[in-house]
Amino acid sequence: MKYIFFPLLLLSSLVFSQESPDTIPLEFRRIYTEALTNGKAYPWLSHLSNQIGGRLSGSLNAERAVNWAKEVLEEEDLDSVWLEPVMVPKWVRGTFEYAHIESSPGNTIPVPICALGGSVATPAAGLQAQIIEVTSFEDLKKIGKEGVEGKIVFYNRPMQAELISTFDAYSGCVDQRYSGAEEAASYGAVGVIVRSMNLRLDDYPHTGSMSYGKLPTRKRIPAAAISTNGAELLSSMLKLNPKLELYFKQNCSNYPDVKSYNVIGELRGTETPDEFIVVGGHLDSWDLGDGAHDDGAGVVQSMEVLRLYKRLNIQPKKSIRVVLFMNEENGLRGGNAYAEGAQKRGEKHIFALESDAGGFTPRGFSFQAPDKAFQKIVSWEPYFKPYLIHYFEQGGSGADVRPLKTKDNVLAGLRPDSQRYFDYHHAANDTFDAVNARELALGAATMTALVYMVDQYGLD
Amino acid sequence: MKYIFFPLLLLSSLVFSQESPDTIPLEFRRIYTEALTNGKAYPWLSHLSNQIGGRLSGSLNAERAVNWAKEVLEEEDLDSVWLEPVMVPKWVRGTFEYAHIESSPGNTIPVPICALGGSVATPAAGLQAQIIEVTSFEDLKKIGKEGVEGKIVFYNRPMQAELISTFDAYSGCVDQRYSGAEEAASYGAVGVIVRSMNLRLDDYPHTGSMSYGKLPTRKRIPAAAISTNGAELLSSMLKLNPKLELYFKQNCSNYPDVKSYNVIGELRGTETPDEFIVVGGHLDSWDLGDGAHDDGAGVVQSMEVLRLYKRLNIQPKKSIRVVLFMNEENGLRGGNAYAEGAQKRGEKHIFALESDAGGFTPRGFSFQAPDKAFQKIVSWEPYFKPYLIHYFEQGGSGADVRPLKTKDNVLAGLRPDSQRYFDYHHAANDTFDAVNARELALGAATMTALVYMVDQYGLD
Repeated sequence: MKYIFFPLLLLSSLVFSQESPDTIPLEFRRIYTEALTNGKAYPWLSHLSNQIGGRLSGSLNAERAVNWAKEVLEEEDLDSVWLEPVMVPKWVRGTFEYAHIESSPGNTIPVPICALGGSVATPAAGLQAQIIEVTSFEDLKKIGKEGVEGKIVFYNRPMQAELISTFDAYSGCVDQRYSGAEEAASYGAVGVIVRSMNLRLDDYPHTGSMSYGKLPTRKRIPAAAISTNGAELLSSMLKLNPKLELYFKQNCSNYPDVKSYNVIGELRGTETPDEFIVVGGHLDSWDLGDGAHDDGAGVVQSMEVLRLYKRLNIQPKKSIRVVLFMNEENGLRGGNAYAEGAQKRGEKHIFALESDAGGFTPRGFSFQAPDKAFQKIVSWEPYFKPYLIHYFEQGGSGADVRPLKTKDNVLAGLRPDSQRYFDYHHAANDTFDAVNARELALGAATMTALVYMVDQYGLD
Repeated sequence: MKYIFFPLLLLSSLVFSQESPDTIPLEFRRIYTEALTNGKAYPWLSHLSNQIGGRLSGSLNAERAVNWAKEVLEEEDLDSVWLEPVMVPKWVRGTFEYAHIESSPGNTIPVPICALGGSVATPAAGLQAQIIEVTSFEDLKKIGKEGVEGKIVFYNRPMQAELISTFDAYSGCVDQRYSGAEEAASYGAVGVIVRSMNLRLDDYPHTGSMSYGKLPTRKRIPAAAISTNGAELLSSMLKLNPKLELYFKQNCSNYPDVKSYNVIGELRGTETPDEFIVVGGHLDSWDLGDGAHDDGAGVVQSMEVLRLYKRLNIQPKKSIRVVLFMNEENGLRGGNAYAEGAQKRGEKHIFALESDAGGFTPRGFSFQAPDKAFQKIVSWEPYFKPYLIHYFEQGGSGADVRPLKTKDNVLAGLRPDSQRYFDYHHAANDTFDAVNARELALGAATMTALVYMVDQYGLD
């Protein structure tokens, strides 16, 4: 693993403002060295995870996170820092969630569950019914109303372990969580239990957003996730006794929308300040863990991009904004509000990069880009090679930046190594200790390096 | 992250024996699918780590590991399985190791230490002396005998965080651990404390091999590693009080060599059985943790390569051996013995691949190869791309396979992501829970895929 190493002391005494490509390797080296030796992403994440914690939209913790992020960005002496108001949904988990399998009357085995975000509560005394296991909506259709009515539907299609990208495995399963209740209710089910989106067998239930679609309120049925170990147990017991019953109760509830904010910081461009580059992650998280990987990592990495610009005295040609979006998890209100605001203000966003795939070793980026711009970006690959950044592909970007898409601009998503992501995603173990400082810092440096290239050399 | 996905059921009913390169993507897919959905590396590692544990050369656990590995390979129905005897050093940590800083008489602060492998004991009552901090042998030379005599030398040069490969950072520091005692003793020091080879600040001391070189027995001084937090504390206290004393005691000891074994399994080649391919890791480990990453991972991945060949019904053209080397950590006797044996038997080893860099997500391989063979291997890169394997570079291979080098053959080392490796390396936290099942399995599949290419398509 060869690369050119330039001592920090020598380089930090220089300011490179020339446009010659000869300076690119030096600037990359400065960016990575500062991020790895003196980075703020990790201590910032420690505060966000350990001092604030899980920060679901509309919660007190989300409000604390907004205030903290604004203060920190102000301390970094950006050209401006402000809050963008946005109304967000407020769903509260409540004070209990519990389930057991009743294998015979009075013979119960507790299994770990958690309410899915947006779900209604069970009746106060809980809900007990026969369980029917399916692996797809197709299964449900085959069984039909007769077989489903009055039962709890148990969705148990596992993530496909043979897929290399765990996000592909997630995409192939998440319909069960998102639309499972709506589908099951249409056949008369009384509740829904969904296998957690997790490739490991363990005891953590993984929450996440769900929707009742157009179901009227009175037809909504409670939905919960069960841990993968719980799902395996339930499935094996059902094979022995298809008449098995499950009991669960949860007292989550939906409230009217409340006011919250995107947090925005800006470095004003020195040459074409009316061209905007956005780098961001989402400030809200689920409530079970600290939201360290999802998306504390993306938040602090995005903040670090602007800090590195300042610290390394890089003059931005275009205006560079960090946007910490509110409510990615259960509404995307922040992403939509930012894009609407940008359009109203007539701002030209040429590039937006989101980090929302965990704080793991970065492998590269996925782009939504016109071919010509994509080819230009791919031509930069050799600069990234010494940092083991090799993945440059057309594909998705990030949920929060997607509303900014125009036919000419480029959106991108950081693509870290995905193998461990769903071990933690939306579960109680998504905590600070699961993030490695170097992996996090490398992600921030890699994002900064790409922003630097787009800023200094453009996309056309 | 696009790739072609072929359903498992369809593929496992076929056997590909044709040589057409069209079958390569299918064979790769079969290999990865089996490793990810039905792999044995992880359950094997669970046994080796949790049921056997740390297995230093010459220990009872090392003997247990030999017997277990032989039994497991026999169950896999290879063409032959045998033990290769080798005499190994026996060093025993003893029953205590302890250190404290004495800031003023009677005022003591304990710091975490562990004896370095091969070190002599302190006197039974321990050793107390003034501390002198250095960051290099050059420092020591400058200070000279006058300043060093009668003191404990504290080597405190940290790993360079700005390097992208943590192995490069390790290489830049490990002289302090390996030769620090020999150097310090030559200036009359009475003991040596070495900052742990760890990029994090934490409380784990990291052991590892050291050598007294040609120092006569009576001149040997005890050497221990201190945790990075301990090193930071000691250094900051020395700044306030350069007369600070340190007390430490350890009762480790060296014993005469004992008999142990390399464990070898073979699939006999069907076309050129006299050409050998070796895949291996080292069965011994340090004694503080379970040796899960170093090198339990390499052991079970290497075993998995041969199991995948059998399970997928791939006919080896050449003879493929798994070699589980004994005594990599403190002597390399197994690697040397295997190479000597191979030479005596006149066996032509065309390729040897070692996995000894942790069970993390594989990024590629490093090769010691003639240019022509290397170019051929690089031409295979497109087959690996769907599996995000991108790193193919000339460089090192592995300590155990290195003695097999000839001018014509190719040696290689698996190169997993290195960011977290030194968080665990040689420390008490190198345990099973630090290994992710998918990352481990991907490494085994990637090794198998490369062995498959060399076996089926050759290197010339």
